Order: sequence, then C-alpha cells, then structure tokens
Amino acid sequence: MNNVLAADIGGTHFHVALFDSEGRRLLLSEGRTDASGGREWMLGELRERAQGLMAKSDQPVRSCGISFGGPVDFRHQRVNSMHVTGWRGFRLGQWVEDNLSLECLVDNDANAGALGEFRFGAGRGTDSVLYLTISTGIGGGVVCGGRVHRGKDSMAGELGHIPVSDSGAVCSCGGRGCLETVCSGTAIGLRGRGLARRKPEVMARTLELCSGNLDQITAEAVFRAAAEGEKGALFIVHEAARALAKALLTAIRILNPDMIILGGGVALSGLILLNPVREYLDEFSAPMLECSTKVVQAELGNYSPLYGAAALAPELR
Amino acid sequence: MNNVLAADIGGTHFHVALFDSEGRRLLLSEGRTDASGGREWMLGELRERAQGLMAKSDQPVRSCGISFGGPVDFRHQRVNSMHVTGWRGFRLGQWVEDNLSLECLVDNDANAGALGEFRFGAGRGTDSVLYLTISTGIGGGVVCGGRVHRGKDSMAGELGHIPVSDSGAVCSCGGRGCLETVCSGTAIGLRGRGLARRKPEVMARTLELCSGNLDQITAEAVFRAAAEGEKGALFIVHEAARALAKALLTAIRILNPDMIILGGGVALSGLILLNPVREYLDEFSAPMLECSTKVVQAELGNYSPLYGAAALAPELR
Repeated sequence: MNNVLAADIGGTHFHVALFDSEGRRLLLSEGRTDASGGREWMLGELRERAQGLMAKSDQPVRSCGISFGGPVDFRHQRVNSMHVTGWRGFRLGQWVEDNLSLECLVDNDANAGALGEFRFGAGRGTDSVLYLTISTGIGGGVVCGGRVHRGKDSMAGELGHIPVSDSGAVCSCGGRGCLETVCSGTAIGLRGRGLARRKPEVMARTLELCSGNLDQITAEAVFRAAAEGEKGALFIVHEAARALAKALLTAIRILNPDMIILGGGVALSGLILLNPVREYLDEFSAPMLECSTKVVQAELGNYSPLYGAAALAPELR
Repeated sequence: MNNVLAADIGGTHFHVALFDSEGRRLLLSEGRTDASGGREWMLGELRERAQGLMAKSDQPVRSCGISFGGPVDFRHQRVNSMHVTGWRGFRLGQWVEDNLSLECLVDNDANAGALGEFRFGAGRGTDSVLYLTISTGIGGGVVCGGRVHRGKDSMAGELGHIPVSDSGAVCSCGGRGCLETVCSGTAIGLRGRGLARRKPEVMARTLELCSGNLDQITAEAVFRAAAEGEKGALFIVHEAARALAKALLTAIRILNPDMIILGGGVALSGLILLNPVREYLDEFSAPMLECSTKVVQAELGNYSPLYGAAALAPELR
C-alpha cells in the first residue's frame, strides 16, 4: 500500500508529514510560519519538506491532503484568504498536483481537525462528532453520518459566532455577543487585562506571572493563575466556561452528536476549562431531554488537523 | 410498481393515505384524534382506514411509513409516550406488520416532516435542510447529506429547547429561556393573555376577536390582530420573531443548511411571522460570515409529516 503526504499550514506553525495507509504517522517535519514571507515562502517550505519526506518513504507516495488555516472553498478547491499575503483565491491543491505530482485535496483546519479526530482520534467508531478548536479564535467542524458536513457556503461548524448573550461585546464578525467574544484566547486575554486594570487586587497572581506588566496578560497567564485558585482569573475562566457550555448545549439540541471534541490551545490547556464546562452543562440540562453526547478533549492534541489532512488524501478517503 | 401506505398520527388529528411509488398522494382519509380513546381507539381507526384504502388501491401495497406525534426511539422502533395513554414503549411498526401485513418504519413527526419536505416539498434537490414545526410546541428535524440525522439519543433538531435568553421563563423541559417559551403557540397565547391583563388598551382588537374573554386569547387571535396592525399583538409577534431569528442564526452557524423550512400552525399562519424573522436575521447577520441558507415556509403545509411517512416506507426509502 502507498504512503500519503499530509500538511497543516497554520498562521504561526506548519507541519508536513508522511502517513501510512492505516493513518499512522511515519515522519514529521515542522516549523514556524514566517508570515512576512507570504505565500511564496510557504510554498517553498512545503515543496522542500515534502520532497525530503517522500525521498525517505519506503512506499510510493501518490496523494496528499492539506489542512489550511483560513477559509477554504472546498467545492472549488480554493483557499480564500489568510493573515498572510498571496493566498486569496489560490488553488493550493492544483499547485501540489503541478509541483509535487500528487493528487491533492485541501480543507480548512477546523474541518480537517474534525475529520482527524473522527478517523484517528477521540471520535473513532462514532457516527457524528462536533469538533471545536479554541485558540486565538474559535472554529469548528461537523461530521455527520461519517462525512464532513461543510454546509451550503462552507460555513458549517462556525460555533465561534453563535450568540450567547443579548448584550455582549461586538465581535470581529460584526455580530454581537458571539461565543468568540467571551471564550477565545484573545477574549480571555482582553478580559484579563480589563479586570486587572479595574481590580488589580483580584488579579495579583496573573499580573505576577506577566512580570507585573498589565499589557502582557495573556489567556495562558489567566489559566495558570486560575489553576492556582486566583479569584479574578477563576471568574474570567468560569464566564468563558458558562458561555461555552451554553453553546455546546445549543449544539447538542440541534445535532445531538455522539461526541463533542474540544481542541486548540485554550481547550487543551487542561481541565481548568473543561471541568466547569461539564458542570454548567449539567446545570443547564433538562431531565426530559436527556442526551448522552460526551464532551472530551482532542486526543491528537495540536495534530488533529494534520491527521485530518492525511484523511483527506484521496487514497485514505 | 407498488403503492405504499402512510399514516400521520397526531395529538389532535390523524391522516392515513395511499401514495404511489413516485410519492404522489392518491387517496386520503383523515379524522380528529379522540384522545380519551387511548391507543386502542387509534389503532382501530388506523386498521380500518388502512384496509379501506388498500382495498381501493390499483397496485399491491406491501410497505408503510408512520409519522408519530411523540418521541420515537428510531433504532428500536418504539414510540415512547404521548399525551394519550397506552403508547409508552409500544412497537407500532411491529403492530402494523402483525395486523396489516406491511413492512413498516416509524419516526416522530418532526423528523418525518423534515423528510417529507426534503423528498417531496420545498427541499427537493437540496443536500441538507433544517425543518421546524411551530405549533403548540416546537419540534425540528435535520436532513444532512440526504439522510435524516437523528443523533445519538434521537434528540437532534430539538430547536424548541435551545436557550435564546439569559433571563427567560422556565420551560416545560425544566430549562430556562428556551425558544419554546417565547415562540410556540402556547407561549404566544400565554403572552397575549398576560399583556391583555396588564395593558388591555394595546390588546383591544385581540380581546374583541375572543369576544372580550381574556382567558380565551389564543396565538391565532394574536396573529390576526397583529396582521391588522394592533400594537400589543405586534409586540408579541415581533418578540417571537426575534427569538426565532436568533435560533435560526444559531442553526445556520452550526449547520449552514441549504434551506430552513418552517411548518406547523404558527409558522403557516402567513407572513406576519416570517417577514419579521427575515428582517431580524438580516439585522443579526455578519458580512464576514455570509450564508445563503434560505428560510421558507413548508410547501406541503400540514401534510409534511404525512409525505415524510410515505418516504419512510421501505419501498420508497
């Protein structure tokens, strides 16, 4: 059986890897994305690392899957934009076929993450999963009846932008009270800085973790201080958990999936978020509508989209 | 080709019909449900009317589908409860096989409605639809990749119980702020009576439509008065439309279906609800997340579940 190539192109990191036909990862090459290098730099890295891995492969490599950290028009196989220049409307799969002679499919990282966890991670053996990736922003992917459900405009799974509060902050999307304004890494950092400014006494440990520099407060520092029991940090984390639980309850009512899988830096930062999410879900749940959907952390950690990319490769589909 | 039998068993009405193999309705027999007669009465009606229709069929009838107005455990083909006695855990499909010698599949009316509209109604030719039935309560069904998605606990599509307000009324399900507490026929009637009690001057026309009897105010009267421009009635309808639009936006973010189809007495009461729903959806929408999901009324009207029942018949699946 042939091996397949997989790549995960993200805004800060990228991964290129070789997988066998069972979805086992054989070789991995990773690096930091040089955003200033734009598309050309990234394609140069991809070509070089892909050729290096294929030269080491003990089996022929004929196909490839790519997870892309930005919107992807799956039907037309075009990546549509990114914080990095040069990608708008680019036919990345076609480029791979032309330059690496591999049959290739591309999807966005949230759908790829959902597929990766469904095929090779926490969702193995299920019929439907909802995968959420919570890091600077919030993305999501839906697997339904064993297939990725992308929706009419490739917009399914956008749980970051469901309304969780009537009077919430204005979101980057232009909406109001979106989940992303409360529960993303960006929002948690912002809330941490706001609370430390207004009430430094309840955020002393968070501030200390950032060398007393209020403007340096990140979601990571808030989570660490919360894990140590700091009152202000715990408040912010519990607000985030409450909003997330409300969003998950909503998703359960609509999809009742076998499993909800949480990935991304914020969700993978330990049980400090997941435990209160489960408690709030319990509080919100209704005995007459009992659902056995499980909420778990991503098993493949930061590599869910990379495994999903492997599963996109035409030979593994 | 054989004809198939279909039945829609509801809490107030029931329908039994003969369909051809293309899903065209050939003969229809309908009646009012006698709730006091319980299961035995209903089964007697079903047997008699089914035999009558089959006797008139110009083709053999070998299979049957049933839409049931209560929870159905689809995997085990058991209906689980209803406001009428005798149904709990009853194997209705098995009863049909034993008593009418027809192969039979049973599903709840919301899933059947979704399937009916998808196969034979507004959703023809699409890949995914969300169907909502808004009458005394709110139910829903999801079609994804051309198949009904029932979910792990047969609970998918329960949009009546997604939270649309933080501080809302307690719902029959035990939750708080569920869509059903604002937008169901029951809720609209209740709100109409409440407002007429507090501010009779803004509900004068609604009251007049109910012969001045405050306790007789129904959702129907509120909709009629709203259509005539009454301030209080319009307020209630707009509150319902706002909550519904929020729920639909949420469903669009999660599923981005080709189409959202609204059925049931409240949704079919004309454009007095649908027009403001579309306006609120427009107001809530975000330019960066543009979705082309259409929101339409059910094409098969009150017969969506009956057509879905026909589509459940093993020979039409």
